[in-house]
Amino acid sequence: MGTRSYAIVGLGAVGGYYGAKLAAAGHEVHFLARSDLDHVRRHGLRVESPEGDIVLDEVHAHADPSEVPPVDVVVLAVKTTDTAAALDSVATLAAEGSVVVAMQNGLGVEDVLARAVPGATVLGAMCFICSNKVGPGHVRHLDYGRVTVGERGAVGVTDGVIALVDDLVGAGLAASALDDLALGRWKKLVWNVPYNGLSVVLDAGTDELMADPHARELVQALMHEVLGGAAACGREIPDGFVQQMLDDTEEMIPYATSMKLDYDAGRPLELEAIYAAPLAAARVRGYEMVRVGALYEQLRFLDGRRSGTGPG
Amino acid sequence: MGTRSYAIVGLGAVGGYYGAKLAAAGHEVHFLARSDLDHVRRHGLRVESPEGDIVLDEVHAHADPSEVPPVDVVVLAVKTTDTAAALDSVATLAAEGSVVVAMQNGLGVEDVLARAVPGATVLGAMCFICSNKVGPGHVRHLDYGRVTVGERGAVGVTDGVIALVDDLVGAGLAASALDDLALGRWKKLVWNVPYNGLSVVLDAGTDELMADPHARELVQALMHEVLGGAAACGREIPDGFVQQMLDDTEEMIPYATSMKLDYDAGRPLELEAIYAAPLAAARVRGYEMVRVGALYEQLRFLDGRRSGTGPG
Repeated sequence: MGTRSYAIVGLGAVGGYYGAKLAAAGHEVHFLARSDLDHVRRHGLRVESPEGDIVLDEVHAHADPSEVPPVDVVVLAVKTTDTAAALDSVATLAAEGSVVVAMQNGLGVEDVLARAVPGATVLGAMCFICSNKVGPGHVRHLDYGRVTVGERGAVGVTDGVIALVDDLVGAGLAASALDDLALGRWKKLVWNVPYNGLSVVLDAGTDELMADPHARELVQALMHEVLGGAAACGREIPDGFVQQMLDDTEEMIPYATSMKLDYDAGRPLELEAIYAAPLAAARVRGYEMVRVGALYEQLRFLDGRRSGTGPG
Repeated sequence: MGTRSYAIVGLGAVGGYYGAKLAAAGHEVHFLARSDLDHVRRHGLRVESPEGDIVLDEVHAHADPSEVPPVDVVVLAVKTTDTAAALDSVATLAAEGSVVVAMQNGLGVEDVLARAVPGATVLGAMCFICSNKVGPGHVRHLDYGRVTVGERGAVGVTDGVIALVDDLVGAGLAASALDDLALGRWKKLVWNVPYNGLSVVLDAGTDELMADPHARELVQALMHEVLGGAAACGREIPDGFVQQMLDDTEEMIPYATSMKLDYDAGRPLELEAIYAAPLAAARVRGYEMVRVGALYEQLRFLDGRRSGTGPG
């Protein structure tokens, strides 16, 4: 199998990590960068990882998407709160019939890409990773890194999914194919909805939430509501999945959730993709995720208050 | 009408204020005090108020309820979190056929008194007041002060209610009689449930909550759930009451809620009376206040975490 060329929009904790892995595996990888463009052009990209550091001295970094040569795959790897600002770049990078990948959190992110790049094959990639951007061109990978990939609107595992999974596995990553992307998205929400939101509202780590019987009960109730939302959207997640998530989280080394990191750093929160989109999807099908909605209102209050006065 | 004698259990922001008003009006008032007993015996009791300060140089203050002469009315004016520790005193102070008054927040507080003092006439008094204990024997009254009084388990305004209202009105207070104490309790919860809890969880004043459309929406949804809980318990509160509470709150000078003051001071929160009791009362009648329950779990988490590590 030959190598494919990639354009990664977003040189953050996710795009930097997966892009560096693909580049290190021999793929031609172009990064669309903003703030650390000069630094990366001069000094390259560095990923510290317990699995071995990756140091790329020479990196294809661009500010202008029209300077990037045609690529096989365009990966959108910005926070969903930056999607709107990045869509023009994606549209410029993607040719008719391209493969575009939403390497993002939440629900509906592939729909946004599909509208921006009509005719493209749109994939979704969910990253179960703990990594931080610690400086310009400098990513610290702490733990995990598994990726699941599915194709928007497709039933079964498609060729586009297989090709991306092959590239990721070839780059040393634990990647697997989903035959139902929406089901995968809802399953990830079962974790993201309670832990991201409560970690911000209650200023708590996942370990604190799990150690307290009341917070744990609320986590569990939120998870069951997400299962209800998924079911309303035709995606059955077995009840046992909730217990599995609780058990897995208890065994996790306690990291701050991505939303907590965003909140503490004064960045806007990914509320649209993680809360508003699932709430709306369930609501139009007649199911109200009541506790999720209440948590969403609390988060909107906190997000709005801070963005009015804080650094974000 | 002659004056009546009172024993007030609890010399805090509420007991200190109303007890001082009754004493200043000529009633014999005995205070059960703990921490500021010596100070009050030596220096008396002082209430600063925009309506005129009250300075009582000589105060009947006691540590031991058995030293208090028989009184006509026993008023329990401690936070509900201190009720259990005060019940023995109330039982000692109250004779068979006494009048005992729960001057407290929440639901079910009169039931606790009725169990502790069998045969007593049990009244509930709800205080709409903004006052703080600022030092030993020193209460600062900021605003409001209205009291509503009803009798537990009674239908209509009873003689016991009329007598207490008369004493309060005679002491210069805006007091009124309720013909349905439970309805009055639920109506007060319509305000207390959203504002007390959200002010703690979101670290916000009532003005901030009202100014933000998302917090306001959540306040409103919580209020409607309390209406649902009241209805399940046979107490119909008209929908328009929600709008009235919202409007009233918008016009209020922004004070911190009592629960926010408790939380910031490291004191335990009145969760049992304001959340657990109404939730349970509605639940046994088949109505689940879902958002209220979620807020309660959040508050229990915060209360528990702090009491584990904080000054409370």
